[in-house]
Amino acid sequence: MAQTSQNKKDLAQARTKTNFDVTDMTNYLYGGPANVEQRRYIIDLIAREPIFNKDDWPWLNHTDAVKRGIAMSTRLAEIKMEHELNDLDFATMVEAIDDTLPILLHNGAFIPVINSQGSDEQIEKWIPLAEKYQIIGCYAQTELGHGSNLSQLETTATFVQETDEWEINSTTFTAAKWWIGGLGAICTHAVVQAKLIIAGKDYGAHVFVVPIRSLDNHKPFPGIQVGDIGPKAYGGFNKMENGFARFNKYRIPRENMLMRFSKVSRDGVYTKPPHAKLSYGSMVLLRSVLIRQMALYLSRATTISTRYLTVRRQFNNPTKRNDTDINPGLETQVINYPMVQNRLFPMIAQSYALFAAGSVMMEMYIGLMTGLSSGNIDTLAEVHATSSALKSYCTTIAAAGAEECRKLMGGHGYSYFTGLAHMFASIVPSNTYEGDNYVLTQQMARYLLKEVKTARTTPNKVTPYSKYVLLALNRDSFAHARCSVAKAEDWLNPDVQLAVFEHRCARLATELSDAVDAAGGMESTTWSDHNIECYRISHAHAQYVMVLWFIQSIREARNPEADEECRASPEAIAILERLSNLHALHTIQTNLADFTEDAYFNPSQCQSLRAQVKSLVASIADQAVGLVDAFDHPDFLLASALGASDGDAYQRLWDKAQTEPLNRREVCDGYEEYIRPLLKKHGELKL
Amino acid sequence: MAQTSQNKKDLAQARTKTNFDVTDMTNYLYGGPANVEQRRYIIDLIAREPIFNKDDWPWLNHTDAVKRGIAMSTRLAEIKMEHELNDLDFATMVEAIDDTLPILLHNGAFIPVINSQGSDEQIEKWIPLAEKYQIIGCYAQTELGHGSNLSQLETTATFVQETDEWEINSTTFTAAKWWIGGLGAICTHAVVQAKLIIAGKDYGAHVFVVPIRSLDNHKPFPGIQVGDIGPKAYGGFNKMENGFARFNKYRIPRENMLMRFSKVSRDGVYTKPPHAKLSYGSMVLLRSVLIRQMALYLSRATTISTRYLTVRRQFNNPTKRNDTDINPGLETQVINYPMVQNRLFPMIAQSYALFAAGSVMMEMYIGLMTGLSSGNIDTLAEVHATSSALKSYCTTIAAAGAEECRKLMGGHGYSYFTGLAHMFASIVPSNTYEGDNYVLTQQMARYLLKEVKTARTTPNKVTPYSKYVLLALNRDSFAHARCSVAKAEDWLNPDVQLAVFEHRCARLATELSDAVDAAGGMESTTWSDHNIECYRISHAHAQYVMVLWFIQSIREARNPEADEECRASPEAIAILERLSNLHALHTIQTNLADFTEDAYFNPSQCQSLRAQVKSLVASIADQAVGLVDAFDHPDFLLASALGASDGDAYQRLWDKAQTEPLNRREVCDGYEEYIRPLLKKHGELKL
Ligand SMILES: Cc1cc2nc3c(=O)[nH]c(=O)nc-3n(C[C@H](O)[C@H](O)[C@H](O)COP(=O)(O)OP(=O)(O)OC[C@H]3O[C@@H](n4cnc5c(N)ncnc54)[C@H](O)[C@@H]3O)c2cc1C
Ligand SMILES: Cc1cc2nc3c(=O)[nH]c(=O)nc-3n(C[C@H](O)[C@H](O)[C@H](O)COP(=O)(O)OP(=O)(O)OC[C@H]3O[C@@H](n4cnc5c(N)ncnc54)[C@H](O)[C@@H]3O)c2cc1C
Repeated sequence: MAQTSQNKKDLAQARTKTNFDVTDMTNYLYGGPANVEQRRYIIDLIAREPIFNKDDWPWLNHTDAVKRGIAMSTRLAEIKMEHELNDLDFATMVEAIDDTLPILLHNGAFIPVINSQGSDEQIEKWIPLAEKYQIIGCYAQTELGHGSNLSQLETTATFVQETDEWEINSTTFTAAKWWIGGLGAICTHAVVQAKLIIAGKDYGAHVFVVPIRSLDNHKPFPGIQVGDIGPKAYGGFNKMENGFARFNKYRIPRENMLMRFSKVSRDGVYTKPPHAKLSYGSMVLLRSVLIRQMALYLSRATTISTRYLTVRRQFNNPTKRNDTDINPGLETQVINYPMVQNRLFPMIAQSYALFAAGSVMMEMYIGLMTGLSSGNIDTLAEVHATSSALKSYCTTIAAAGAEECRKLMGGHGYSYFTGLAHMFASIVPSNTYEGDNYVLTQQMARYLLKEVKTARTTPNKVTPYSKYVLLALNRDSFAHARCSVAKAEDWLNPDVQLAVFEHRCARLATELSDAVDAAGGMESTTWSDHNIECYRISHAHAQYVMVLWFIQSIREARNPEADEECRASPEAIAILERLSNLHALHTIQTNLADFTEDAYFNPSQCQSLRAQVKSLVASIADQAVGLVDAFDHPDFLLASALGASDGDAYQRLWDKAQTEPLNRREVCDGYEEYIRPLLKKHGELKL
Repeated sequence: MAQTSQNKKDLAQARTKTNFDVTDMTNYLYGGPANVEQRRYIIDLIAREPIFNKDDWPWLNHTDAVKRGIAMSTRLAEIKMEHELNDLDFATMVEAIDDTLPILLHNGAFIPVINSQGSDEQIEKWIPLAEKYQIIGCYAQTELGHGSNLSQLETTATFVQETDEWEINSTTFTAAKWWIGGLGAICTHAVVQAKLIIAGKDYGAHVFVVPIRSLDNHKPFPGIQVGDIGPKAYGGFNKMENGFARFNKYRIPRENMLMRFSKVSRDGVYTKPPHAKLSYGSMVLLRSVLIRQMALYLSRATTISTRYLTVRRQFNNPTKRNDTDINPGLETQVINYPMVQNRLFPMIAQSYALFAAGSVMMEMYIGLMTGLSSGNIDTLAEVHATSSALKSYCTTIAAAGAEECRKLMGGHGYSYFTGLAHMFASIVPSNTYEGDNYVLTQQMARYLLKEVKTARTTPNKVTPYSKYVLLALNRDSFAHARCSVAKAEDWLNPDVQLAVFEHRCARLATELSDAVDAAGGMESTTWSDHNIECYRISHAHAQYVMVLWFIQSIREARNPEADEECRASPEAIAILERLSNLHALHTIQTNLADFTEDAYFNPSQCQSLRAQVKSLVASIADQAVGLVDAFDHPDFLLASALGASDGDAYQRLWDKAQTEPLNRREVCDGYEEYIRPLLKKHGELKL
């Protein structure tokens, strides 16, 4: 088994080339040693429990998987209570478990929605029950016929004054709640979005706490038809019982309507909320959490791919490749091929940028909530738009990236045992839920259109991240703006990079604004004619902000006056700057036409840009393994035969194959019944 | 159930807008009514047999799925024999079955390899047995340690002169055969690639027919350790038992080496083949078949997506949308959103282009084989390179396209019942097998580098599809070449489009050639430093050829002197020309930087290009449903709740959900064991 130890040797040898302190880098990523420690502690809590073992997952069908999901859910709840864990720790447990469980929406949506939209008495009533899991909840908004368009939900809650109740009705077939995680099997309660109707008048969608299953025997209450919507794409969400529900004149008490903002009195008088968008906070939170999640996902995918491609050798290329002197006669490690590096390393850089984006987004959210709590809604619109743009962009690149990491591994990449297939299947729906990634970009576009107007009237009121709209105020000079890069090194100047992204955003925002104005304005019925351009500007903005935040996070890490947790050593800073350059320039290269179609870049700048990207990619090569080690994903979490930390890919792949249940039989099931009759159809054959 | 019939009404109404004859278009796609008829007949053969019913597939685990795969395999074999079906009909059966079965490599590789590499006597011995399924074969090339790099396979076949045998050995752990479809359970024989060794001398990889399992009882023979490698990514290839095998001094007779080209005599004398690349033919065939398969896949994906997005309504947009007058008060059909059209319609155009490419590629293959049979190898290099470039490009866009079609459908797109998830899982490995899509592009690049040289010495010897290299012969004038488009309509001129693609190919080929020369030539050790550029030029070439072939196929369909099967009506031609324009211009737009970075396009051309693409996309809108109907994919084949031909998406999705086994129980499995103890941990709760 010589090759096996060659795998290990290869990875070990690659590690020796790391020229920065991996621990230091890990601390930078997670915000200091205390966080790193806590994350390890929590992952270990999960790894130690047999119920979270992942070995038999690939062979579970949906029926068995949901049962497992239920078992895992209840254990997760118990651990949370036993150890009195907070939300971040809960998120880390879910990260470690690495699957979507029936109970997730209880903590992820049911509790937060009651907390943010319930009155004080309602919070006092429901939250303690929910926190002790005496009730289990889910979040039921989407219907068979409606998801994106909330305003057309068809479920109704009609006030019945005689009995002081709401009557919940699925008025039509398409009003059936659909896709609701936790509804299929586990939940006892749901927060349900339904149109509030009083005396025939429709007040639009409101939120109600609806008992679904009996606390005595878990049977659904009469008047509710409930079930599982069936298996999902790519084997994803297999342990989750996304459910449907139809309500037939189902009654709940009036006080089950969440009444922090809107209220309905005993005599049926409706009071509307003081501000229309106060409930946006929880959406911003969910999106901010998603961005951090994408950082964790893409960093895991690149970890697996980087390690395997370091030990995979294919083709003899006895050249200057830096391993040949040490390993004469061996084939080239595929990670040495420029094409492999060109596909993989920008995703490592992206993972780092996602970590930075996740932190800043979370800070913005906290800032927003602090403001809101003192009645300040100034930043609401900006934070809402930013989180929408970032959610759309980050979930898009993470899903595409996971599949690219899998494909990078060639044939063995198509094995379940890479650990990546399961991941991709879990990531892709994030492009759809919490707001479809295309629909969502219209939020950022609307925001920027307002900023373009503000720039013309009160330029000092433009918010920081959209200051670029000021660049295009003078149309003539903007039309002749040209990129300042004169020599190749100029590309490495962060200020130049930012100027380049700002130029693009300014142009796209202004073009969109002109087009919308020409067509009659934002509120005109032609708004949707611009949705291609909304998507373009929103992603351009997201890229700009990602580049900016990554640059800023490195500046902070370099700042001797910053908090100790934020600082990093000069060696780490040096490689982070390379990653940031790679991230910025590769993003530009991927979208190069956006910078050339108005002649902002000239041909020689294009050439030098490509050359810089190529040389930055090459400059990461020796550090790649160290950079992914720094993500600090333990083997339990990776659950990958190809990407384990010891590099022993072939041995693990072999061992995994031996666990295949089919291999327990010498002759396959189906031989007597099917194969033998076929083989013998034309008589006995002796060879 | 009002909405249900609205679904149907919506699709029916969309059909009324079709302004060409769908049958006529179907005939164009499949090459005449006889082919269409035959395809329908064959699909129906499969649809009628209960064993090919797809309803319970999502709930099968790998163990059950393989058993099903075996049952389906044997029935497939029987039908082939009963009806004496040819290879194309066999392919259509496989298309209709829509899954990868253990037996596929028997017909897809085992038989073709023996036919092309066996001597006449060997063909006479093995082929009749194989055709009557008295033996079942597979194709065993890849090993745990080697796939792309054939030359380093580690399995050996050592000549044992005393007994006139070969001794097959897996010399090392990584020599284990791996990924071999059919090896895990079903096969009795394998054609095995192994290094031929005589008297200590290594003659490189050769092909041997190796008995794997006993014809008496199907037990693997002593000396062979064989099994299934385990589940695959995304639930793909679930019914296929891709297998592994290790050989331990396993003996087979000398005459089991396939000896059409190379030979070994009784006394161990080795005779080498007359020409090194004679075995390329079967690779070209497999790749050509793949291109047609991609046309079928992407056309299915766009069919499903187009139909569902026609019946899905979301958001009120009571504008000029052409359905509102007929359906007042209803929301907009999401297919009316420009962003949806912009994502979807170019893929319909691509599907049509893929159909054309599949046919031409197959004709090229037949031409090649005709030539070869009379000793003419002139076109071998070109056809080999073209099929490599096309395989890489077409499988890439088909896989990405299938996932995009799924994502286009929003939330319901993530249900298994779309029919698309299963498809994507089946397509993605095509990016890896038959030559990894990145490695493969080096074939085209090498070919073009030779063409660049030929252009300089004997320009009249340059082959037709690479004639563009002549454009760059005069460096100076080429550097100043500018796109000729002056007004928007110029973009619609096929000759202009082709000139644009030719310019790009000429530039990239010349740049690559210069870079390779500067680094010491193609055979130098720095060759792999250019593999990013190899990928770029190969895909650019593939796009050029795809655009060209689609244009040519329409010209032929318009030609009154062409075969009747190739002709189409003026109405069909008109819409085909729009599709061809969209395909060409959208491909340019997607790769816009390639045309701007050398200032070949100027800013106003970029603007008018984008405007043209937008208007072409819009111009397809009314025809989209007719265009996908023309693909002629019956509901059995689509196996999609959302994309069925009657449009009844919501009803079908509902009905499918009711078949979920979890829904047979009122209270879920796991309640007593897990949920109840959790709920009751803090005592009984009465609410
Ligand atoms: C795994 C998963 C879990 C979920 N869990 C829950 C849950 O627990 N609770 C819950 O309530 N919901 C849940 N959902 C539902 C989810 O929130 C919705 O599916 C999502 O918001 C998308 O809405 P939709 O399905 O209506 O998409 P649609 O709006 O139908 O989208 C279809 C297509 O139309 C396009 N489109 C729509 N409108 C426009 C427009 N105005 N302009 C341009 N293009 C447009 C979209 O881009 C998309 O391509 C879940 C969904 C999934 C996949
Ligand atoms: C579903 C499936 C079915 C299969 N069925 C069979 C079968 O029946 N019989 C059989 O014999 N085989 C089979 N195979 C194996 C398949 O043919 C190989 O996996 C495939 O050829 C890729 O080779 P690899 O795995 O060695 O990839 P690798 O070469 O290991 O690729 C790994 C990575 O390195 C890159 N790379 C490698 N070399 C270079 C280079 N020179 N320059 C730049 N980049 C490079 C690749 O692009 C890729 O990203 C099957 C595979 C799959 C997935």
